[in-house]
Formats: sequence, structure tokens, C-alpha cells
Amino acid sequence: MPQKLKHLLSTQSLKKSEIEEILALAKEMEPYAKKEKQGNQMKGKILAALFYEPSTRTRLSFETAMLRLGGETLSVTDVNTSSITKGESLIDTAKVISQFADIVAIRHSQNGAVNEFSKGSSVPTVNAGDGTSQHPSQALLDAYTIQKELGKIDGLTIAISGDLKYGRTPSSLAFLLSNYNIKFRFISPKELKMKPEVITHLNRLKTPYEQTQNFEKGMKDVDVLYMTRIQRERFENFKEYERLKNVYVLTKKIVLKNNPKMIIMHPLPRVNEIATDVDELKNAVYFRQVENGIAVRMAIILTRFL
Amino acid sequence: MPQKLKHLLSTQSLKKSEIEEILALAKEMEPYAKKEKQGNQMKGKILAALFYEPSTRTRLSFETAMLRLGGETLSVTDVNTSSITKGESLIDTAKVISQFADIVAIRHSQNGAVNEFSKGSSVPTVNAGDGTSQHPSQALLDAYTIQKELGKIDGLTIAISGDLKYGRTPSSLAFLLSNYNIKFRFISPKELKMKPEVITHLNRLKTPYEQTQNFEKGMKDVDVLYMTRIQRERFENFKEYERLKNVYVLTKKIVLKNNPKMIIMHPLPRVNEIATDVDELKNAVYFRQVENGIAVRMAIILTRFL
Amino acid sequence: MPQKLKHLLSTQSLKKSEIEEILALAKEMEPYAKKEKQGNQMKGKILAALFYEPSTRTRLSFETAMLRLGGETLSVTDVNTSSITKGESLIDTAKVISQFADIVAIRHSQNGAVNEFSKGSSVPTVNAGDGTSQHPSQALLDAYTIQKELGKIDGLTIAISGDLKYGRTPSSLAFLLSNYNIKFRFISPKELKMKPEVITHLNRLKTPYEQTQNFEKGMKDVDVLYMTRIQRERFENFKEYERLKNVYVLTKKIVLKNNPKMIIMHPLPRVNEIATDVDELKNAVYFRQVENGIAVRMAIILTRFL
Repeated sequence: MPQKLKHLLSTQSLKKSEIEEILALAKEMEPYAKKEKQGNQMKGKILAALFYEPSTRTRLSFETAMLRLGGETLSVTDVNTSSITKGESLIDTAKVISQFADIVAIRHSQNGAVNEFSKGSSVPTVNAGDGTSQHPSQALLDAYTIQKELGKIDGLTIAISGDLKYGRTPSSLAFLLSNYNIKFRFISPKELKMKPEVITHLNRLKTPYEQTQNFEKGMKDVDVLYMTRIQRERFENFKEYERLKNVYVLTKKIVLKNNPKMIIMHPLPRVNEIATDVDELKNAVYFRQVENGIAVRMAIILTRFL
Repeated sequence: MPQKLKHLLSTQSLKKSEIEEILALAKEMEPYAKKEKQGNQMKGKILAALFYEPSTRTRLSFETAMLRLGGETLSVTDVNTSSITKGESLIDTAKVISQFADIVAIRHSQNGAVNEFSKGSSVPTVNAGDGTSQHPSQALLDAYTIQKELGKIDGLTIAISGDLKYGRTPSSLAFLLSNYNIKFRFISPKELKMKPEVITHLNRLKTPYEQTQNFEKGMKDVDVLYMTRIQRERFENFKEYERLKNVYVLTKKIVLKNNPKMIIMHPLPRVNEIATDVDELKNAVYFRQVENGIAVRMAIILTRFL
Repeated sequence: MPQKLKHLLSTQSLKKSEIEEILALAKEMEPYAKKEKQGNQMKGKILAALFYEPSTRTRLSFETAMLRLGGETLSVTDVNTSSITKGESLIDTAKVISQFADIVAIRHSQNGAVNEFSKGSSVPTVNAGDGTSQHPSQALLDAYTIQKELGKIDGLTIAISGDLKYGRTPSSLAFLLSNYNIKFRFISPKELKMKPEVITHLNRLKTPYEQTQNFEKGMKDVDVLYMTRIQRERFENFKEYERLKNVYVLTKKIVLKNNPKMIIMHPLPRVNEIATDVDELKNAVYFRQVENGIAVRMAIILTRFL
């Protein structure tokens, strides 16, 4: 691999041209993602999916993307049983694993762990989520879904609700969409307000945003309502989790009352924060995000080798 | 997938014509299962093996079947670390996973879980064992083995012994064989008698059966002795398990004394209930069941797409 | 598989001609291991990687070798959740698994477990490490690395340091290299001296060896310094581990002072026993061992079928 390695570590590090390249290529990948065609673009190549924090959905999405492009996969899911528990550094792990695989998708429970891994890796490294920090492939599939459902990204108003403090998805998405002409509305309890680094970033860019605790007001007039789960695993204080977990619950009635036209997104898994009667609405797009995710991850994989 | 989805959820739901289709196709699949030929019937298709309850044997059997038909596999074995622990419903999980895979084989520790999953799945779902309820692929490979070893199923007398209360294999097999002209003998301690729903079913069909606690008497004059393990993981009361675990132990001597001609079957793993000296008998067919299992699971996979 | 099964259970069982066959074939495999070529020598064949003791590195190395030869893989990594916990014997497990796979690579925490498994296996079984006993594929890749780096094996002086009592790598390597004209130096604290069976073996062959506790003296004038980790998981007494874990720490300064020309090897993972400043030295070859390991495991796999 003589050229400079094309890691995908964060949405901040993506240029707008790179985002657009991935979104365009994802569109071409749809027939493969939809099981209409079998690819061979990755024939003879191996993706290592290193999931040091469990995530069935994201792991299988990356593996599916690789398999449907004709590639092969290696999986590590034994969180507590890897070399890591023997005390090896992530840089050493990377030096080893990158000799096996042609590309690595890695998830880790600690912020910055994927960055650290990438320093030792001799192959492209894709951040599949690290701690409360980043989840760039999710943000890219979210942007792709918005563009596909609404025909554009520029000019939209996007509400992001839920746990904006610990969630990696809201901040990853906000950073990514700040490349576009967007208005944000951040809906959260005051304990879970959007991370300061996102706020600072948007202020610097003069990207307009509002912050509110009022769920129903927050969703009025937006084009997109992006819901997130209050993640138990991010709370050190279980009582605080219990108090906040059901703070926002979207129902069909609430959608129809406040904004029947907005598209409703969610990175999944959802627990109680979206009632199942919302699923019936044709603008509930969260399960379509999954399909888009395969196509987008195909594009992420392919662009690592361009 | 425009046609009606062909799930395989239980042996009760199988028509006799479907059973016979699977058994006939399994015979054709034998060269692939025996490693004599490599197939490509499933090229470009992905099987997701979701094992929320551990079972190395059954998982590898399904995966082997898929690989030797030229398909690919996704595996989930991290029982406690999936979206399930994040609180996602099985229907949501199914909506997601079925976008990745073309067919799903799922095992779960709870009765009815696979049924629930199938409601959300957009691809054929195969029950690889749920709780104490069903294990249809095992019953099909058992029927295939009986037919292969004895040339027929109709007209046989079949003894099923061991844990008939908690075991999913005995009831699945009894339901399946009730499509044929069979006499049953159920051998169990009185605490572990055959499930009432099986008894009711056989009464309705007027299928003859006897129930006994006497192991040696029970095996006299039968064509098949189907042994099962007393499963520790099904008992809430450990003392009861300890008391019952070695209630029936088959030895070569017992076979030769009571019925040297019957074939001896077991779904495996066995612990103490069959002494290893029985392995020498040519009518001990339990390891041949494993090979038949690959061919039968190939047939199950293939018939999902016919 | 009509011919005699070609298991690889220990380095003691390898004839010198077999070692040389594997090393020669490994050299031919390098373009495949280095991702320059994709092989199809194992097309239609399945490797089962059964890792009842965790080892991400060794498992992925075997799986990578198989995939880059065009084969397929089955993985078992759920240490506590297999048939083993249901009480099945290793011989029964082998009788089952070997019907699925064409070749098995197995790691186990107990000495002799792989031998036991091989008795039931109907396909070639490769020991991927058992307890404190054997790790033949590691020893073969070590020998390959020595030959590749230094142009020969005969005539060299080789220091092996660290945990020579519990480590399976030092003894496996010593047994293997005793086929050559070698001088050994064993560097260890007195509590962790080389296993008696190795000493007895070398005495019988009249292979020269020295034993020392002095790390710096031990590495003088050697051609190879083979470092090993003090493995926490092998100690029953945690205090003894704490006392011994940092007994030998190699730094760049120590290398340059005592023996700047020797090659420095390590089976990985390393913890503190080699400072990262050693990595800069061109004779620090431990990460090159990983790449060689893929080629050597390809050769091990291929020779099972010759």
C-alpha cells in the first residue's frame, strides 16, 4: 500500500468533497446492498471487524458490505478475551492485525482508542464508534438517508433529540452536516445538552442552532427529527439514567399533532423512545437507514482504496 | 423477495409433503455434505446464524451447510452483548438483521422467541432451537437418519427416552413423526414425562404410544432407541438434576441383552447417558446423524428459496 | 480422506525433513501472505478454528492463511459456552467438528487437550497451543524467521529468555531447533527455569546449552535473543507474578551496549518486557514474525493435504 493511508477516524476530518464522493458512490452501491447484485470489487481482500465494544448491528453491517462486494471478513467480538486483556498496547495490536487484513473497522469503548489504533495500522482504519466520541459511518449513512428522502441537504432544519452529551451519533452528525447550509435544533434535558465542542464549532462557522428542552416545540417546522436513545451504558449514575430514560417518547399522535411531514430518524436500537405505532408512518425512515447503511459502508470501504 | 416467506418455525407447521421434499433433497445433497463436491447453489447469498443461546454444534452445522453450498455466513454468538441487552425488541432486531442476510438461522433460550423474530423478518427464518419448545432442523435430520438407516419410516416402533419434559428434541421429533404410521414408546422418570401437548396431539391422531419408566423394558422390540441428555441448563432445582441425571445409562451390555438390532440415536452432546463402549456397535448411529444434519440443513436452506 | 491423517501436535513429533518441507513451502507462500497474490489452493475447503482459550492473534493468523488460500473458515471463540460446558468429551467434540471442517486448528487451556481431540478427529488437527505444553506453529514461524533473517539456522547461538517454565513457546522452539546444530542460552529467574523435559532432551542429544539468571550477560555474543512475556494467566500465585513480571526489560540502550547485532524476537503480545524504543532497531524482528506466521501457517495447512 504505497499511497497515503485513507483512514476514516472522525466526521470532522472529512472534507466536503470526500463526503460527496462517498454519498455518490453509495448510490451506485444500492443494487448490491439491496441484494439485487453480487459484487466482486473487494475480491481477495479481507476486512477485520474488531469490536471491543459490542455492536451486532454495526458489525454485521460492515461485514455484509464487505461480503456483498466479494471480500472476506475476520471478526473479533470477544471483548474481554483478546490480547488487550494480556496488556498489549493498541498500537501493537494494530501492527499485528493490519498484517492480516486489508482494511479494519474498529469499535472501542474508550474515546480516542481508534485514533491510537490507527497510528500502528498499516492499512486503512475505519472508526466504527469509539466511546462517547465519534461514529462517522453512522453520520454518513444519516446524511445519505436525509439526501435520499428529501432530495437535498442544504436548506434543511434538523432537530436532534435525546442524549446529546454522551451520544456519539448526535455530535458526529452535527459535525458532518455543518459542511452544509443547515439549521439545527438540539432537544435535550439540561443534563444531556449538546457537547461544548460541537457548540463551539457551530459558533465559529456561524451555523444557526437553537437549544430547547421542549420536545414538542422542538420538532415544529423541522424537516428532520433525529431521535436517539438514552444509553444506559453511558451513565455512571443509574438513578440519573432511570430519571431521564423516558424523558422524550415519540408517538404517532405526537407526530401527527406537531409535524406530520418531518422524516423521523433513529440510529437504532430504539427502546421506548419511539412507540411502535410510529413505524406505520411512511416518513418513519429508521429501518430504511439500515439498508442505506450497507450501501454507505460499501462506499466507505471502496473509497479507502481509491 | 416477492413470494410468501418460507419460515421453518416448528415441526407442527410442516406438511408431510414439505417433510418429504426436504428428505428427498437432503439425499441429493449428500455428496456436498460429505465433502465430495463443492456447491454454488447459494453463491451470493448470506446466512445469518444468530445464536442467543450457545450451541457450537448446531451453529457450525448450519454454517457448514451454507459454506458448502457456496454461500457466506454472518455469526452472532455474543449472547450477552448484543442489541438485545440494550433493550431492543426481537421484532426490531429481525427488521434489521433481515436487511443484511438472505436467510436467518436463530437459536434463543426463550420459548416463542423465534416466532416473535419471524414477525419482523423480511427473509426466511429457520428455528435452530428455542427454549424447551422446538428444534425442527434436528427433528428433520433425525427422520432422515431413520429413513436412511432402516429404509423407511412407516411401520416402525420408536422409543424416545430421557428428558421428555424439558427437551425440545423429543417433542419436535414426536410431532414430526406423527405424520407417519408410527408406534411410540416414551421412556422417562415420572418427573420428566412427555409434554402434554404432544400427548394431546397423538390422542387426537389416534397414534399409538406407551409411557414407561422402565428403561430396559422400554427398549424391547423397538426399531429405534432415541436417547436424550438430561439437560442441566433446563433445571431450576439443581438437586433434582443431580438425582435424575444418570437415571438411564445405556451400555453395550444393555443393548446386547435387550435389543441388539435397534438403531441407537442421540442428538448430542452426550454426557454419561451412553457409555462409550456403545460407540463400537454398528447400529450406534449418533455420529452419523451429524453428517446427515449437514445434508438436511442444506435441504432446509435450499427449500426456503424454492 | 483415505491416507494417514497428518496432524501437527507437537514440535517433538516433527521430523527434520517435515520441518524443512514446511519452511521451503512457506517461502513460496510469501506473496500470498503479503497480500500480493490471492490463492485458491484451499478452494472448497473449510478450516475450523476452535479457540477454547482466547488468542486473537493466533486465531486470525490461521484464518487469514486459510482465506488467502481461497478456503473458508468456521470460528469458535465462545470459551465458556460450547458443548464443552455441557460436559461433552473432547473426543466426541472432535468426531462432530471433523465432519464439518476439512482441517482443525485448536487451542486449549489444558496440556494434552489437543492430543485428546486428535484421537476423535477424522481430519488433520493442528495444535494452536495447549496449556503450558506446546505451540508448534509458533515454533515453526520462529525457525522460519531465524532462517530468513540470518540466512541459516545451523551454527547459531540462540538465547531464550523470560518464563521458560510455564511458557509453551520456549520449549516448543527448543525442541524444534534441537534438530539443528545450535547452541542455547536459557535466561530466566531461578523460579522459571527451562522445563526438565527440554533439558533431558538436550542432554540426550548432547546439544550445548547454558542457563543463567543474568539478562545482560546472557545476550552477549548470541545471534538471536528470543524474549517472552511473563504470562499472568499461568501463575496461581499473584504475588509471585508481581515480583517476577518485570525481571527482564529490554531497552534500546541495553541492546546497543551488549549486542547490537543480534536479532530480537518475541512471540507477542509484549507488555513491558521490550521497551518501544527497541522497535526502531532494524534487527527488532518481532512484527516481521507476524507476517512470516501467515506464510508458515499456509504451509502448515497445505502440507496437511500432501
